[in-house]
Amino acid sequence: MSHQSDRDIEILKNLFTAVESFLTSDRGMPYSDRKEPEELSELLELDLERGIEDPETLKHWVETYFRYAVKTHHFGFNNRMWAGANISSIVGEIAAAVSQTDAGSYEAAPVSVLMEKYMIRQMLDLAGFSRGEGQMTTGSSNANMIAMMSARNLLSDHMKSSGLFGHQKLYAFVSSDAHYSLDKAVNILGIGLDQLVKIPVDDHGRMDPVMLQKEMDRVVSSGGKPFFVTATMGTTVRGAYDPLPELVKLREQYHFWLHADGAWGGAAIFSYRLKEKYLAGLEQADSFTMDFHKMPGTSLICNVLLFNNRPGIMDFVCNVGDKSYLHRKEREGEEYNPGAYSLQCGRRVDSLKWFLDWKFYKKEGFAGRIEKYHRLAELGEQIVRETEELEMVVPRESFNLCFRYNAEGDKNSFNELLRKELHKRGITLIAQAFIAGDVSLRLLMTHKDMEEEHLRGLFRKIVSTGRSLDRLSQL
Amino acid sequence: MSHQSDRDIEILKNLFTAVESFLTSDRGMPYSDRKEPEELSELLELDLERGIEDPETLKHWVETYFRYAVKTHHFGFNNRMWAGANISSIVGEIAAAVSQTDAGSYEAAPVSVLMEKYMIRQMLDLAGFSRGEGQMTTGSSNANMIAMMSARNLLSDHMKSSGLFGHQKLYAFVSSDAHYSLDKAVNILGIGLDQLVKIPVDDHGRMDPVMLQKEMDRVVSSGGKPFFVTATMGTTVRGAYDPLPELVKLREQYHFWLHADGAWGGAAIFSYRLKEKYLAGLEQADSFTMDFHKMPGTSLICNVLLFNNRPGIMDFVCNVGDKSYLHRKEREGEEYNPGAYSLQCGRRVDSLKWFLDWKFYKKEGFAGRIEKYHRLAELGEQIVRETEELEMVVPRESFNLCFRYNAEGDKNSFNELLRKELHKRGITLIAQAFIAGDVSLRLLMTHKDMEEEHLRGLFRKIVSTGRSLDRLSQL
Repeated sequence: MSHQSDRDIEILKNLFTAVESFLTSDRGMPYSDRKEPEELSELLELDLERGIEDPETLKHWVETYFRYAVKTHHFGFNNRMWAGANISSIVGEIAAAVSQTDAGSYEAAPVSVLMEKYMIRQMLDLAGFSRGEGQMTTGSSNANMIAMMSARNLLSDHMKSSGLFGHQKLYAFVSSDAHYSLDKAVNILGIGLDQLVKIPVDDHGRMDPVMLQKEMDRVVSSGGKPFFVTATMGTTVRGAYDPLPELVKLREQYHFWLHADGAWGGAAIFSYRLKEKYLAGLEQADSFTMDFHKMPGTSLICNVLLFNNRPGIMDFVCNVGDKSYLHRKEREGEEYNPGAYSLQCGRRVDSLKWFLDWKFYKKEGFAGRIEKYHRLAELGEQIVRETEELEMVVPRESFNLCFRYNAEGDKNSFNELLRKELHKRGITLIAQAFIAGDVSLRLLMTHKDMEEEHLRGLFRKIVSTGRSLDRLSQL
Repeated sequence: MSHQSDRDIEILKNLFTAVESFLTSDRGMPYSDRKEPEELSELLELDLERGIEDPETLKHWVETYFRYAVKTHHFGFNNRMWAGANISSIVGEIAAAVSQTDAGSYEAAPVSVLMEKYMIRQMLDLAGFSRGEGQMTTGSSNANMIAMMSARNLLSDHMKSSGLFGHQKLYAFVSSDAHYSLDKAVNILGIGLDQLVKIPVDDHGRMDPVMLQKEMDRVVSSGGKPFFVTATMGTTVRGAYDPLPELVKLREQYHFWLHADGAWGGAAIFSYRLKEKYLAGLEQADSFTMDFHKMPGTSLICNVLLFNNRPGIMDFVCNVGDKSYLHRKEREGEEYNPGAYSLQCGRRVDSLKWFLDWKFYKKEGFAGRIEKYHRLAELGEQIVRETEELEMVVPRESFNLCFRYNAEGDKNSFNELLRKELHKRGITLIAQAFIAGDVSLRLLMTHKDMEEEHLRGLFRKIVSTGRSLDRLSQL
């Protein structure tokens, strides 16, 4: 072995020591050594220089990174739709990093291409999509955009060549609680924010189909074309599921593309019971996306976008051909070159971690996990209702708990303060959400090791912190 | 420690053994155990199941993955614009995978956000951009699209809200040798492929500015609006650099956005001499993108898009606000939340590997590497010219060598056959490119450890393989 290989292995050994200490010290250390940007900038000394190719450089920065990074695998991290990552997924990321390849073509990435195809078939089966296709994207924002782009390009044979100039105005519809990536999508695609119609939600946070029909009629009578509806399967804040079966019915009349955005709540797909409850009618959607990096715990980013019953749609929508070096149409086995029908040229090997997670936990493992999260959400709601100091801001719809401390005076300011105080004391970094202008604490169960005792303990600490702040404010 | 932590550390230890063997065995093993898709599918037995959370599962699949993956860090891999990855970059990917966070907000990712801002400042300085901004994207296809979207949205205050309906036709211009991601960009953005004008190239493979001006006049006189020009800094096949200074002059007259796509050849920026030679005028471009995952060797994906002299452009173009939970405009420190002005919601921590590479090799290290690649390309051209059996398909422009075996008869078929044979014999997986219909072998020097002796050895093997095929064809 060369001297350099020896050095590299030494570097990786040092790294492994740091990794081990990072992963095993979670109970003892706080989840975050929180600093303001200016203060942290100074502490980091980003300008610090050492010799060229000095292994100590890497040691120093990795330790520094681990020290000030937020420990998302800590029970105190309740900020996002994920917490930590599956060990199998971390293994996959490491193997992908070491083997360093591009998942765009079979020639360079034979194994990952086959794994990706295999996983997409698994997911198409679960979704009940027939004659389906799918791709891994760079995230659910990207997936939602590609779904909308597919609906747009399918409107005419000439959309790809002519563009939107002079075209009848196109309108997309989402609930007022839908994810802002749909706003980004109409911006990217040249459709414009004014042509994204936001349909009011009912008391449960679900898109109101009567209002949707009204808005579609309004659009049609003004000469516009309704072409795309996103049904959110688990809204970001409230966890509401838009009524798919009623939207499917409306589609018969208006012929729009019906996209199911299950980035968050699509994970219910693993559990027979929860799928029936929340995803009924999914097999009739035109497309469906879900993030494995949210509830299922796969390392960031791991998204899949599935298409129903339109063979060749990805090629029709995305492929613009390349005549110089890659993905030539006439080349054999093009179905094995995901680069040809995705919007990326270089593609990370995300399929390996996805495949490893699937093989390690299996469908049953994911079903059990999602069902546990659901039970914990039920328990959390019960705890809030039974605790005098707490109240639900809105009733629970599925997995999301939107609650607050029931303080005297301005509840919004109090709960913002409470959230900051919980972070300052290292108890929890919890998400803040806004519902009709009201500040809510949003708690999502996404830590695979979280059990009832942790949840009860978390609420106890929130209440005691709230009490101490409440006392102070009454002084 | 819990039983599960022990198990996870054991899993990572096993993985480390596999990683060590993968990384150190490169000289001995072939770069690829090449199989056809059907054959490999059978060998992989992707349906194979074991118990839930069985560590042997991971061991089996990682070993299988490593076995059949193409070894891109092997000298035989000459297929892409990268080969293997920097050790510091691998360290960064591993640390990012283990710490699992989302680089969209300072709250969840304080260190990586500061590292990203630091690196963007370094790059803005190198590019000579003043009052600049930048973002890491999901790849150069994405970066090119965002640059074009920026130009489009800047055309009017209402583009974001109104979209392209009824708008004057917009035209973008690229050289006929530009990357196909620009085709994808006009498709995504609703501009349409017909509005992407491909300007012929001169003998050097550079966009012809006289033809560009002619095409712009034609567009204007037909009532269209030229709004965007991509100057390719290092074309995919020939490695040509479009003439930036002449395009800057044309911009005075036509007021388009001038984007410099340096995904490949932008790496010349590290070397004073090569920057002068290839990137003169860059400081006057409106935007510039380059991939650290190509010549600089950073692990896939690592792209940066830079904007010149338009403060607030990213916010204006990309931010559509979110009122529910993240990135609220009124929140303090928003400049520390890259999620607000990028098109992604969840963002991988790509900045850590980028930062580590920068600190480990330093600017001087990258300069030395890029200059070596340039010298090797010069040497390669010389070898081809001095070898009777070989010929250049076109003269070398910068880093790319487009050559072929000078066989009797149909040279295209012969060189396609030669390429396959080189792969079959495990000598090299070299890229195939097409220039005016002619098959060319495209050799790029992107392996950081490649030296003259390796290059000479590679050419010797190509010639001897060609000779044996040539003899066969003459039988």
